[in-house]
Amino acid sequence: MVEEAKVLLLGSRFSMFGMRAKIALAEKGIKYEYMEEDLTNKSPLLQEMNPIHKKIPVLIHDGRPICESLIIVEYIDMVWHSNYPLLPSDSYHKAQARFWADFVDQKVYHASKRVWISEGDEQEVAKKDFLQSLKQLEWFLGDKPYFGGDTFGFVDVALIPFYCWFYTYETFGNFKVEEVCPKLISWAKRCMQKESVSETLADGNDVYEAVVDYKKKFISN
Amino acid sequence: MVEEAKVLLLGSRFSMFGMRAKIALAEKGIKYEYMEEDLTNKSPLLQEMNPIHKKIPVLIHDGRPICESLIIVEYIDMVWHSNYPLLPSDSYHKAQARFWADFVDQKVYHASKRVWISEGDEQEVAKKDFLQSLKQLEWFLGDKPYFGGDTFGFVDVALIPFYCWFYTYETFGNFKVEEVCPKLISWAKRCMQKESVSETLADGNDVYEAVVDYKKKFISN
Repeated sequence: MVEEAKVLLLGSRFSMFGMRAKIALAEKGIKYEYMEEDLTNKSPLLQEMNPIHKKIPVLIHDGRPICESLIIVEYIDMVWHSNYPLLPSDSYHKAQARFWADFVDQKVYHASKRVWISEGDEQEVAKKDFLQSLKQLEWFLGDKPYFGGDTFGFVDVALIPFYCWFYTYETFGNFKVEEVCPKLISWAKRCMQKESVSETLADGNDVYEAVVDYKKKFISN
Repeated sequence: MVEEAKVLLLGSRFSMFGMRAKIALAEKGIKYEYMEEDLTNKSPLLQEMNPIHKKIPVLIHDGRPICESLIIVEYIDMVWHSNYPLLPSDSYHKAQARFWADFVDQKVYHASKRVWISEGDEQEVAKKDFLQSLKQLEWFLGDKPYFGGDTFGFVDVALIPFYCWFYTYETFGNFKVEEVCPKLISWAKRCMQKESVSETLADGNDVYEAVVDYKKKFISN
């Protein structure tokens, strides 16, 4: 089955990492098959294709797996380069885009998770870290319409999936991102005007309900 | 001063991340200035050039900073591409090299640090994780002379600096990597025959003494 499908994506509905791959594929106009993974009962295919981390997303291109979301986005950008480049061609700006995408993984993701998973003082620290990381991103965005400059690019793809989780972070943490980072919210709304983004991102309420459900099932209070 | 120096590296003697940049620069035959940072008293230049993480290494090329070791190595490989490519040109193998270099950061580094910083049960878990990560790398190495295939490449640059820390991990953790991963040790010895590596890696005893000193100063028992 894998051999027949030219491009197959293993993902999970609410995963911002899976969304990155979907947005990149949509930006490039690539037709692909999609398989939703149940992360509490991972498929043999996922375990075979990503034996090291056993995590989604996995892009399977002509039977060969590519793992880790930012590596997948770079791969898509390399293979279908002529369609619409996501990374700048200049070496310095490419390095800078990689730095900020990595920053999203290192700082934004970890802090954002702690906002909804923790409570009390730990949650206060997480909120501070999360908003601080967004402020740093807003500083890098400056007055540009996109992180990529005039066009939607690699850092935009890396960050925008978190936008559909904002309602969850804000509800658990009792804050409003827009009050701290208004420019970032304007950027997110700009991105949402792109079909590749609006058709990929989950609904904020659905994310919140899934997280409430997850906490009930897996995190004891 | 920064403006005058075409290539300047901010590093720290025992940092495996700094060593990656040094090895890549040496492989490419690039002349550069080096500035040793005191990590307990970071220079204004480091704080200005890497305001986000304030970490070494930072490569300053014509006054513009590039941060994060793997991003630096990719930058060096792009800018001085003709000298001796570190990453494969093929998109799939490039993605695979990025995956394994990222694996070194995600798995090997974190487990290795816990081997010398922790004690008791936590240390036992760290030892298991560390050796497991090396075994996975050994599996990917297979019978190739280098991770890059016939030539020394990106994953080799990412992993080899850890070799000069092996004596420290082994001494604190009371184990021998060679007993578990003999092929990996053969690979490391092969890498050490390269001047770019042997002249960059710190002496294993010096690393150990610095770590003992660090623990005395900063970690209470």
